[in-house]
Amino acid sequence: MTSKLNVVPFVSVDHMMKLVLSVGVERFLTELSAYVEEDFRRWESFDKVARVAAHSPDGVIELMPTSDGTAYGFKYVNGHPKNTRDGRQTVTAFGVLADVANGYPMLLTEMTLLTALRTAATSAVAAKHLARGDARTMAIIGNGAQAEFQALAMKALLGIDHLRLYDIDRWASEKCARNLDGFGFDVITCSGTEEAVDGTDVITTVTAAKQRAAILTDNLVGAGVHINAVGGDCPGKTELHADILRRAAIFVEYPPQTRIEGEIQQLAPDHLVTELWRVIAGEAEGRSSRQQITLFDSVGFATEDFSALRYVRDKIAGTPFFDELDLLADPDEPRDLFGMLLRAAA
Amino acid sequence: MTSKLNVVPFVSVDHMMKLVLSVGVERFLTELSAYVEEDFRRWESFDKVARVAAHSPDGVIELMPTSDGTAYGFKYVNGHPKNTRDGRQTVTAFGVLADVANGYPMLLTEMTLLTALRTAATSAVAAKHLARGDARTMAIIGNGAQAEFQALAMKALLGIDHLRLYDIDRWASEKCARNLDGFGFDVITCSGTEEAVDGTDVITTVTAAKQRAAILTDNLVGAGVHINAVGGDCPGKTELHADILRRAAIFVEYPPQTRIEGEIQQLAPDHLVTELWRVIAGEAEGRSSRQQITLFDSVGFATEDFSALRYVRDKIAGTPFFDELDLLADPDEPRDLFGMLLRAAA
Repeated sequence: MTSKLNVVPFVSVDHMMKLVLSVGVERFLTELSAYVEEDFRRWESFDKVARVAAHSPDGVIELMPTSDGTAYGFKYVNGHPKNTRDGRQTVTAFGVLADVANGYPMLLTEMTLLTALRTAATSAVAAKHLARGDARTMAIIGNGAQAEFQALAMKALLGIDHLRLYDIDRWASEKCARNLDGFGFDVITCSGTEEAVDGTDVITTVTAAKQRAAILTDNLVGAGVHINAVGGDCPGKTELHADILRRAAIFVEYPPQTRIEGEIQQLAPDHLVTELWRVIAGEAEGRSSRQQITLFDSVGFATEDFSALRYVRDKIAGTPFFDELDLLADPDEPRDLFGMLLRAAA
Repeated sequence: MTSKLNVVPFVSVDHMMKLVLSVGVERFLTELSAYVEEDFRRWESFDKVARVAAHSPDGVIELMPTSDGTAYGFKYVNGHPKNTRDGRQTVTAFGVLADVANGYPMLLTEMTLLTALRTAATSAVAAKHLARGDARTMAIIGNGAQAEFQALAMKALLGIDHLRLYDIDRWASEKCARNLDGFGFDVITCSGTEEAVDGTDVITTVTAAKQRAAILTDNLVGAGVHINAVGGDCPGKTELHADILRRAAIFVEYPPQTRIEGEIQQLAPDHLVTELWRVIAGEAEGRSSRQQITLFDSVGFATEDFSALRYVRDKIAGTPFFDELDLLADPDEPRDLFGMLLRAAA
């Protein structure tokens, strides 16, 4: 084949790690956040479709497509809680960005790592618009796979440099503290949620609790705090006591999805929430006072994956951090697909 | 990484061609047909979802998912008629097969070539059940990318060995005849549809006509013929005159889709059609007499792609015809995704 039209750039897990490291994690998160913010600002230009889910007794496989009319993206993502029993990940993901004008894929990439990065970037974009401007201290409740990314994104965008970590498994907090060593944080490992949230400006909840949990109870949340609720992200899985929700100004990505999957599944279906994109676009008020409790009820949305795909597509240009996949048949004459096959035999 | 859980087998276009050639095209089509037929027979075990389409002025991008509860498959496919202007294909496709029990992809493969093969295999499975048992002669109206695959599948399953080719562009017929040289056909290149269909047992229409065309008119269709209508496959695109449909016993894949996309979009929405799977499963009658005109109104359905993915997945085992893609992040400890990133720097 003389043409390269058959080729699709592919970013493997190894290449994604090398790309992130070569850019620098904090700069990667900062630049990615700018893409996420830009796409939230032009929210209305997106074709927003509900995710297409295939449920089974052990888990779910979802396709999350979206398009801005110029590019089309989708993410394949699974969720299988029992996977860790045989050494597999609970969640894995990959994604594709395509050109709407000709339908050709422009990028195939791993998205397990990239989803962690875009989730943290989205949390930081929301916090930038909702937390108090002088916020410097964050509690992270749940110190698993997301924790370090959340910390670094908040540092990059808000200047958060004091962390108070708590996890029911102390090993996880120690792992998190160790991994963040050298990134310029003042880290305190705590022995309970109450200790962790004491005096913090931002509270991030990102536990793996599988049921209606109340990781955070109302009495622990002081005035002026911004809550970044990341872990409640599917029906039946919540982290905050409902009383907190009733005191807070609630901001969400896409209400039809958040009302099913987010913390607000605990509230009446008509409880007032504000779409984050409206705050970013200047169409709605964010934080109204220093005393207000703000809550970003994050469940993850297809546009955030789209932003991440766009960013990676732009960022790999000129780098060695991708392979060229021979994914698309490209006969010299479209009507001679069979002839292409015959010539391959020669 | 010591584990191989991160790896997904990938079949490139080049490997697909080599796989098909190493198996032999006719044997590949025969074996693939058996998978297609098996999946039609257990039709009711499939989760059938409408395709998820993103339309734009220049074309469409679709995701076609389905699952049998054990495996999950989806195909990405675009359709952009103007693509040939700049040397691109009108249609390209790729697909993924995943394990429902853990959500992990088991196969990523090109599907442009594979779709041509599965479409021909499906046509042949239908004809095996609907054409007269002594059918030996087939007309192919439209001699583009699908023609040779249709011919070989019909030969493999029915013993069709006489072909009568017609295309409005004589080059296409000559290309098709040349490509089929050495495959044991008696081929006649015709100068019109009437000449092509004269005395044939099976008529395959597979043109690229973009509008309501009448490639085949009623007077040309004699008693006892089986019509394999492949080219009418989207709203506004049909190949057969409606009078033929009114004389024929009509068999379809998935009625809700065929009524929108197939030849029967020309008929009333309650016009009687029979689902092909019922004939294969022995629940409905196929051909009722030697005189009856049977019509398979084929538009392509997700289960056929699923069958093709299953077949390729089984067939590549032990061959060199795939690569191993590092698609899935596989940290030693699921909660230490960030640590995996840090260790990659070392």
